[in-house]
Amino acid sequence: MIINIPENSDFSIHNIPFGIFSTKDRSPRAGVAIGEHILDLAAVAELDVFEFNTAVFEKEVLNDFIGLGKAITSKVRTNIQAWLRDEQSVLANKPELFVKQADAQMHLPVYIGDYTDFYSSIEHATNVGKMFRDPENALLPNWKHIPVGYHGRASSIIVSGEPILRPKGQTMPNGADKPIFGPTQRLDFELEMGFITGKNSELGESVSTAEAEDYIFGLVLFNDWSARDIQKWEYVPLGPFLAKNFASSISPWIVTLEALEPFRVKGPKQEPKVLPYLQYEGAKNYDIELEVGIIPQGSEEQTICQSNFKYMYWNMVQQLAHHTVNGCNFNIGDLCGSGTISGKDDNSYGSMLELAWMGTKPLKMKDGSERKFINDGDTVVMRGFGKKNGVRVGFGEVSTKVLPAKP
Amino acid sequence: MIINIPENSDFSIHNIPFGIFSTKDRSPRAGVAIGEHILDLAAVAELDVFEFNTAVFEKEVLNDFIGLGKAITSKVRTNIQAWLRDEQSVLANKPELFVKQADAQMHLPVYIGDYTDFYSSIEHATNVGKMFRDPENALLPNWKHIPVGYHGRASSIIVSGEPILRPKGQTMPNGADKPIFGPTQRLDFELEMGFITGKNSELGESVSTAEAEDYIFGLVLFNDWSARDIQKWEYVPLGPFLAKNFASSISPWIVTLEALEPFRVKGPKQEPKVLPYLQYEGAKNYDIELEVGIIPQGSEEQTICQSNFKYMYWNMVQQLAHHTVNGCNFNIGDLCGSGTISGKDDNSYGSMLELAWMGTKPLKMKDGSERKFINDGDTVVMRGFGKKNGVRVGFGEVSTKVLPAKP
Repeated sequence: MIINIPENSDFSIHNIPFGIFSTKDRSPRAGVAIGEHILDLAAVAELDVFEFNTAVFEKEVLNDFIGLGKAITSKVRTNIQAWLRDEQSVLANKPELFVKQADAQMHLPVYIGDYTDFYSSIEHATNVGKMFRDPENALLPNWKHIPVGYHGRASSIIVSGEPILRPKGQTMPNGADKPIFGPTQRLDFELEMGFITGKNSELGESVSTAEAEDYIFGLVLFNDWSARDIQKWEYVPLGPFLAKNFASSISPWIVTLEALEPFRVKGPKQEPKVLPYLQYEGAKNYDIELEVGIIPQGSEEQTICQSNFKYMYWNMVQQLAHHTVNGCNFNIGDLCGSGTISGKDDNSYGSMLELAWMGTKPLKMKDGSERKFINDGDTVVMRGFGKKNGVRVGFGEVSTKVLPAKP
Repeated sequence: MIINIPENSDFSIHNIPFGIFSTKDRSPRAGVAIGEHILDLAAVAELDVFEFNTAVFEKEVLNDFIGLGKAITSKVRTNIQAWLRDEQSVLANKPELFVKQADAQMHLPVYIGDYTDFYSSIEHATNVGKMFRDPENALLPNWKHIPVGYHGRASSIIVSGEPILRPKGQTMPNGADKPIFGPTQRLDFELEMGFITGKNSELGESVSTAEAEDYIFGLVLFNDWSARDIQKWEYVPLGPFLAKNFASSISPWIVTLEALEPFRVKGPKQEPKVLPYLQYEGAKNYDIELEVGIIPQGSEEQTICQSNFKYMYWNMVQQLAHHTVNGCNFNIGDLCGSGTISGKDDNSYGSMLELAWMGTKPLKMKDGSERKFINDGDTVVMRGFGKKNGVRVGFGEVSTKVLPAKP
């Protein structure tokens, strides 16, 4: 191997995820993560080893690179794998091509034109239904027929490492007769994964479940920040708005669908049977272990959730087929969030709302404090990886610190 | 006047709206509408009369021009007014600067990064509440406290003149025990206006009601196409999604806030009093007469609705202050729809849902047909203008033909 890759690295030779990074001496450009390094694709391009216009690697986002199509982007990935494995390759003896991740700043990897959030975990939807509606009829009538989703705000999607401010907003306290204004008292994370589209579809065109994977470039970890008190007061009848659009955080490295191939698994049985346009063949879920940690200000990290992407009731090809069945068009870089990924066990719930069950079961932290929701100074970290037969492919992390609301 | 402007033209000397047009011999570029002509700004720029980089007029969208800031864009407008009025000006004897609108194709005037739709007409919200919820408590508890809004899909916003396909989707017929799939049976328009933002705000920054007008470049007519049967089945609990995102149509000319100055009026009294961050001073509504017509295939246009933008309960500065109070950021070109603009009279309702009252009062058309919703082959046309003391400033129209669903 051209470069040392620590055992158990998320960024193994099997991964080769794409991202945008900058260094002190050079502006944002494309790279791939390998072990603890970044292979600088703009620098590799100067070796004249690619048969396409490598100006795409000099851009501040990967959209144009992704737009070259999977025939090319997949080949870039497999070429890099081959070069890294071959001690005599074009990458040999060129340490200047490799930047330490610790020396680089990561940026949003794509320009996101539109962002949609789904609600596709049956455990999460059931938990929410139990808490806020009828415990006996927790799922709404449409839930098993439709991968329920809604539009989110694209402008406020940020990359791991950027802090957020506690948002302010309007809430209606229990028992009050008029609303109040102030910082949210119920700031929450949502553990999600997001897929980034890799191919445009035209207005009026529908993408079938069989075609959908051609339109998915890769995945990231996604923290869909939420303010539960704002959400409760605003969301009827048109859905969440200011409770969500103050920020959503993504991990910086886009792990391609090809890299996740070893981790395909069958999803849960869907009963009742879904309409034909939502039916699909094959294994469309992915066994990706997920965890969430909280780092209280000045304290050590504590894992509070362990979940898995394989729990999803609705999978990505169903989400995309549903989203386009009415002719809604997609552009390269559009992001679709999975919805909060909860499992069956109460330590697998993907939000504080569920983990602390609406504040009735506060989580005990190692420093002696309790958490019903997220405190100022807390950093929320999400991680995810697939591991099978010695092959590990991971996402790194999405880490976001919460700063106090502006005075 | 350098160019003849027909009496009662929407595009009077008082207007000077900005748009993007192309001609057979030249690609999209910026222009202003004047009477039945377009003043070609890319051509005017060649006369070396502007003191900024006029490459902004060669772009396919106006975002960069708008980004120059109101100090410059307002001056461009007033300069053009002065030049048009002065028979000796730089525009004199240069017919090549003026393109007949009939010879031009209009394009989407801005790149829209994010699109939000509000729900700010009390008459519309009350009508919907009466039909679908409790006639005695038609307005939901939050409605008078919050300018309720939700995120829409930016990718499927199209310009006047582009036809749409009847969308297909999943619906639950009354009395059925499982959903069906097919073309919507309840295709509807929504008469709205939209404002286009003219200044970026940063993530974490709030725009006050006093500052909001600085962030609004101008307005367009907005037809928020809706599929009522799809909406009914999908929208609980996360809001409208596929019922809306198949298309929304806007008029091609952005009428600046400055041009609408003569039409300012006070809005309805807001009772109960709103929270301080939503309070404002001065007249923030606009007296803009609106109408909707249907042109059945092969038949003549019939006006079915006459409304007015002044009816809005929540105004634009309140919408923008609310949208940013949690720190949500805006980019130049972002679009905010007003929500359906209905008045008190039953011919002033801004949607078929209300005009034909859920299909119970079909509209009689001149050709003998009836309309409960919009038929294939129908063209829906919306128009709007302000008129006061001999000054007329109009929006032209947003016109969209409905084609049958794909087989």
